[in-house]
Amino acid sequence: MRIACVLDVDYEDSEFKQPYAAFKNQGHQVTIVGLQSGKVLRGKQGKVVTKAEAGIDQARPEQFDALFIPGGYSPDHLRADPRMVKFTRAFFDDDKPVLAICHGPQLLMTARVVKGRKMTAWITIQDDLSQVGTNVVDQDVVVDKNLVTSRQPSDIPAFIRESIKVLEKVPVGTR
Amino acid sequence: MRIACVLDVDYEDSEFKQPYAAFKNQGHQVTIVGLQSGKVLRGKQGKVVTKAEAGIDQARPEQFDALFIPGGYSPDHLRADPRMVKFTRAFFDDDKPVLAICHGPQLLMTARVVKGRKMTAWITIQDDLSQVGTNVVDQDVVVDKNLVTSRQPSDIPAFIRESIKVLEKVPVGTR
Repeated sequence: MRIACVLDVDYEDSEFKQPYAAFKNQGHQVTIVGLQSGKVLRGKQGKVVTKAEAGIDQARPEQFDALFIPGGYSPDHLRADPRMVKFTRAFFDDDKPVLAICHGPQLLMTARVVKGRKMTAWITIQDDLSQVGTNVVDQDVVVDKNLVTSRQPSDIPAFIRESIKVLEKVPVGTR
Repeated sequence: MRIACVLDVDYEDSEFKQPYAAFKNQGHQVTIVGLQSGKVLRGKQGKVVTKAEAGIDQARPEQFDALFIPGGYSPDHLRADPRMVKFTRAFFDDDKPVLAICHGPQLLMTARVVKGRKMTAWITIQDDLSQVGTNVVDQDVVVDKNLVTSRQPSDIPAFIRESIKVLEKVPVGTR
């Protein structure tokens, strides 16, 4: 599957690197979509450096089968750009898999797609989500149809495991 | 007046340093309250380094006349600690001045004190606030009774100006 990984600087290094490697290892194609094409993207721990392969001015949701949102400070940067919010919402409109960890659900909150959904997130974002009508559960991973969410770096193995299951079960016809 | 400045690492350097200096210059006493006493607190730009003069385990709201919340990534760290959230709420219970800039209002959102208030904040936090019933205004500074809020570093002069006015007008008897 073609996965869009939306990313800006100061992401949580492990929450990008480990799922990214695992999805690729499963044969999926992952494209890093940033605010500008070519922008250098360093993690908040300074352990990982990558760059945006596509800018949000060029990326179209139709080019992708799934969306992956790593955590850290990146999601709050991304949701300041209305094009990124619109891009995100399109994956929900088409019921495509969305995989978000830690602060990733901040982008979903701005996209107005969290009400009534069963989700988890970083502890402070759990509270924001509960205030806008999300059914929040404090556990390592929560799967609600094609939406997979996790809380923090220690949840990465569970996040990868359930994300891969959701990516596998999407019918071939919709890819 | 005795002002509590709640602060953790990765705050926006200028949003701490400039109001902190201006309040002290006006004769106010400012105490940095952190998650642990003595914790070294470096700004996200790396330009300012300070430390917590008191820890949240020792600080009591009765010791202070006003609350100052600088922005950056600090407020999201602070609101993960229920003691910091309770400390914040006490200033609203007693109608004491609260001065919050940029991401500072995230702490107020977790403290459940933003509904029906007229406020501003960093652009992404404006959207969160609007989803929970805050009357959000996109301008450099908003004063609602004893609550002063601003959006970003370029608003610092207006934030300092209105904060000082609010600190001055609080009757001596309540200090």
